[in-house]
Amino acid sequence: MSAGDTFAGTQLRLVARSAKPAGTVVDIRGVRIGGHEIVIMAGPCAVESEAQLLSVARAVKAAGATVLRGGAFKPRSSPYSFRGLEQEGLRLLALARTETGLRVVTEVMDVRQLPAVAACADILQVGSRNMQNFTLLEEVGRCGMPVLLKRGMSATLAEYLQAAEYIMAVGNEQVILCERGIRTFEPSTRNTLDLNAVPMLQRQTHLPVIVDPSHGTGHAWMVPRMACAAVAAGADGLLIEVHCDPAQALSDGANSLTPEAFALMLEQVAAVAAAVGRATRLTLNSETAAAPV
Amino acid sequence: MSAGDTFAGTQLRLVARSAKPAGTVVDIRGVRIGGHEIVIMAGPCAVESEAQLLSVARAVKAAGATVLRGGAFKPRSSPYSFRGLEQEGLRLLALARTETGLRVVTEVMDVRQLPAVAACADILQVGSRNMQNFTLLEEVGRCGMPVLLKRGMSATLAEYLQAAEYIMAVGNEQVILCERGIRTFEPSTRNTLDLNAVPMLQRQTHLPVIVDPSHGTGHAWMVPRMACAAVAAGADGLLIEVHCDPAQALSDGANSLTPEAFALMLEQVAAVAAAVGRATRLTLNSETAAAPV
Amino acid sequence: MSAGDTFAGTQLRLVARSAKPAGTVVDIRGVRIGGHEIVIMAGPCAVESEAQLLSVARAVKAAGATVLRGGAFKPRSSPYSFRGLEQEGLRLLALARTETGLRVVTEVMDVRQLPAVAACADILQVGSRNMQNFTLLEEVGRCGMPVLLKRGMSATLAEYLQAAEYIMAVGNEQVILCERGIRTFEPSTRNTLDLNAVPMLQRQTHLPVIVDPSHGTGHAWMVPRMACAAVAAGADGLLIEVHCDPAQALSDGANSLTPEAFALMLEQVAAVAAAVGRATRLTLNSETAAAPV
Amino acid sequence: MSAGDTFAGTQLRLVARSAKPAGTVVDIRGVRIGGHEIVIMAGPCAVESEAQLLSVARAVKAAGATVLRGGAFKPRSSPYSFRGLEQEGLRLLALARTETGLRVVTEVMDVRQLPAVAACADILQVGSRNMQNFTLLEEVGRCGMPVLLKRGMSATLAEYLQAAEYIMAVGNEQVILCERGIRTFEPSTRNTLDLNAVPMLQRQTHLPVIVDPSHGTGHAWMVPRMACAAVAAGADGLLIEVHCDPAQALSDGANSLTPEAFALMLEQVAAVAAAVGRATRLTLNSETAAAPV
Repeated sequence: MSAGDTFAGTQLRLVARSAKPAGTVVDIRGVRIGGHEIVIMAGPCAVESEAQLLSVARAVKAAGATVLRGGAFKPRSSPYSFRGLEQEGLRLLALARTETGLRVVTEVMDVRQLPAVAACADILQVGSRNMQNFTLLEEVGRCGMPVLLKRGMSATLAEYLQAAEYIMAVGNEQVILCERGIRTFEPSTRNTLDLNAVPMLQRQTHLPVIVDPSHGTGHAWMVPRMACAAVAAGADGLLIEVHCDPAQALSDGANSLTPEAFALMLEQVAAVAAAVGRATRLTLNSETAAAPV
Repeated sequence: MSAGDTFAGTQLRLVARSAKPAGTVVDIRGVRIGGHEIVIMAGPCAVESEAQLLSVARAVKAAGATVLRGGAFKPRSSPYSFRGLEQEGLRLLALARTETGLRVVTEVMDVRQLPAVAACADILQVGSRNMQNFTLLEEVGRCGMPVLLKRGMSATLAEYLQAAEYIMAVGNEQVILCERGIRTFEPSTRNTLDLNAVPMLQRQTHLPVIVDPSHGTGHAWMVPRMACAAVAAGADGLLIEVHCDPAQALSDGANSLTPEAFALMLEQVAAVAAAVGRATRLTLNSETAAAPV
Repeated sequence: MSAGDTFAGTQLRLVARSAKPAGTVVDIRGVRIGGHEIVIMAGPCAVESEAQLLSVARAVKAAGATVLRGGAFKPRSSPYSFRGLEQEGLRLLALARTETGLRVVTEVMDVRQLPAVAACADILQVGSRNMQNFTLLEEVGRCGMPVLLKRGMSATLAEYLQAAEYIMAVGNEQVILCERGIRTFEPSTRNTLDLNAVPMLQRQTHLPVIVDPSHGTGHAWMVPRMACAAVAAGADGLLIEVHCDPAQALSDGANSLTPEAFALMLEQVAAVAAAVGRATRLTLNSETAAAPV
Repeated sequence: MSAGDTFAGTQLRLVARSAKPAGTVVDIRGVRIGGHEIVIMAGPCAVESEAQLLSVARAVKAAGATVLRGGAFKPRSSPYSFRGLEQEGLRLLALARTETGLRVVTEVMDVRQLPAVAACADILQVGSRNMQNFTLLEEVGRCGMPVLLKRGMSATLAEYLQAAEYIMAVGNEQVILCERGIRTFEPSTRNTLDLNAVPMLQRQTHLPVIVDPSHGTGHAWMVPRMACAAVAAGADGLLIEVHCDPAQALSDGANSLTPEAFALMLEQVAAVAAAVGRATRLTLNSETAAAPV
């Protein structure tokens, strides 16, 4: 299969690699996704409190993350589960952004939440369950802000790229793709992380591709290995759940790394990145630190 | 597994069979879904024109359908595909409803479309791609109208019932479930129609369960056999795509039966329904016709 | 897709519908599979003892079965599970065949078991796990006996038909296909019974197609409904697990019907069969009984 | 989940990590699988001729492989496809082994082939389609030779480990596991390479785990990236298809790397291996070369 306009029987236009062979770099106030650096996005599954969010934010920044993740609006299978702090969660994300200088990515589930979310975030996340919520795709597209579009749990790559096409078709070129595991028959992991998707997407589209090994495995102890594997496969970034006290997390505790495990993981990731000719902030910072003034 | 409150590790409350052991009948102006009669919903995938819609509507009514299906807003994988006539489509559905007396079911994709759709429809359809669009579920729930909630392409039955729980949790008891095929590895059919879901859902929940063999197979020639199978498995109704000229349909032509094939199918369905102790409108009409004055 | 020689990108030859448009009837000493009658094969998962086998055999015969199923060699996921009575199991099957006049179908797992199994059985079963055990396929083909080839757990229909082609390619035309559920993401049922396979196979091949709802659901209480659905979908027969004391069965107790439930089920199956223009032994026997001398 | 005896509801005994916490190293005449070195197994899908096999064997040895792969008996979906040179293929493998000093791994499909295959190979391969061919598992176990057991296309990890338990239960401790891609809904790759399996297996069992990115992707151009990802995930080795003229290969040409691409890939793999604290023969050779006498 040659890179180009048709893929698995579908017609790709604006997202096709051939439309921008050099590749897209999404620039979030100086954090460049899709360039030489492997960008680390990390933080709690859900924003739970000011103390929780700020402590995690400071920890992930210290370890080498440049983007803070955290959900204010949480899509939950059961209506009786914790669904996030909502407006208060957005306020805390804005606070953490100011305090730490980290860029913020957070999920928007509904067109009516868009103005409020857009005011507090640097990147709008469209979650897996909404990957084919086509009116939401168009509205986040019209916002003109960078969008992190997660792959649907059972979306083919061709469907995924067409979902990205919805965002681009209304004029928004700042789309980041994210492989986060697909649904298969295997029960021992929460999802099956489809790392084949990384090279395949990068061949078919010019958009940057990151990987979420936290949801892709469902086990915190597996995350470091699969983060390294994602980088070796060519990922442009990682999205990682970190919580200061995973056992007490209101959601996804089983997935979440402690700040200490996260920092250790980023050292391994930096080594693998170097092995495949990429850099991480860790490397870049130490280069800067070492550089003569 | 006994019928009850827990199912596959999840807690069911309002949707649980134990909450209403006798079962729910959703009454749409006299058309009772979940009762003795197997209800037939039929019509085109998309509303295309007044002539198209009215001719199909009259044909499916004559054959024994009591509910007209037809999409005004169409969720399409590609942004460049025909996405429905939108407002004009709703107007035509309202017209067909008046002209034929059929009840109307049509999809709502976005909370902002709700008032307009609610004004023209008897049943609000939430499509497979929006099964976990939780804010949409709550808004259709608050509408107070009957809701047809289609199973997501890769939703487990436990997730599906929790999505229905979202609608019921805001006070709406009129929910109809619909098995429409799941995504598997088999490529020769568009989806794998999971008829196991019919008895399993009916054991776990009191809500009526219908089946869509058009999307569940993707081949018009398979629809009659799978419609009969669905009824034998215990389905409370069928959702069938019918088009007067399938080869010219703007969407899903390959799935769509001609009115003639549809009428023939309903005779077979009536025979199977009788074999399992159920009736169809066809039977009921002929009984009425045959009844002494 | 027209019936014919190519299917889902593969070339079918001897199994193709076009090679024998009228369809194949496999005749097992007067029991005709693929004809007007829906053939019922029933019995225990595993042969456990003479008393167990004979009591089940007499019960299923009385209810309307014409073929006795029962495993002497059992493929089990764990090496520490009960693997069948082996030679003694074969001896008991031969005894039950003599005592009841039922035809016998039993699994062969290994080419070295073939002579012994062939001596006691009327139909050689190749199980799901061996669907692509190509040397076994050829050896059962060369035996010249009827073969019941079960679909692999994750075999596409194209792969399944090519496996049947292996048997036919060595000169054996007596192949019976059996849909028994496929592996999907749904955890509440043991497998997902793919009834779409019934019409699709019957369009693509001339071989008879039966259905195993016992393995296809994994729940005895679901078997009657799915057996009816299979017949409505066009199945030529059913393969059903029956045990006189399911709670004490050495394997697959959860799947197994009691003789009473089985007899009740066959009455429902007979009604559905009549509705779709087919007959069962139950109907045929009562017709014979009712016939004037 | 703690490492131990139960996994996903099944009981593991001899294969369980707890049975041998330090891990198993399978030693093939000095090539140690499961130790510090990442072992590279490479060669053609099928043995086609003496010239083909010897040229590939020499090329992969020069690039850093220590084990030669090549099929003499090929399991093919269609009975009409090329099924391997059989006895002649075994003879050529023995010749290549003598000529190059490489260890040889080749598939055995049938217990009757065992003596002939065992005489020419260092490792017996049981293919994906035979992962639950239980009598074959026991016979290769009894052979006393190292066994490479590939994961079935839709086998859960728990089923896979129980298949390995069959081999160990007859007294053979030299089992190598191999993730080779699973069957999912994604059509753009031949299989979905499940790299989650690598850390999960290594936590649950003491057996070495290698990865086959050739079958796991189906695209030669993706193999180098996924080989690097597999090593980053912790794989103990790689199984790679290499052919001097992929376009003319009698099977799996689309998967196969040229010797040049293979050599280039091994340089990348060596870098990633070093990043995660492992070595490859490439590194070890250069260390030896650089070592003072």
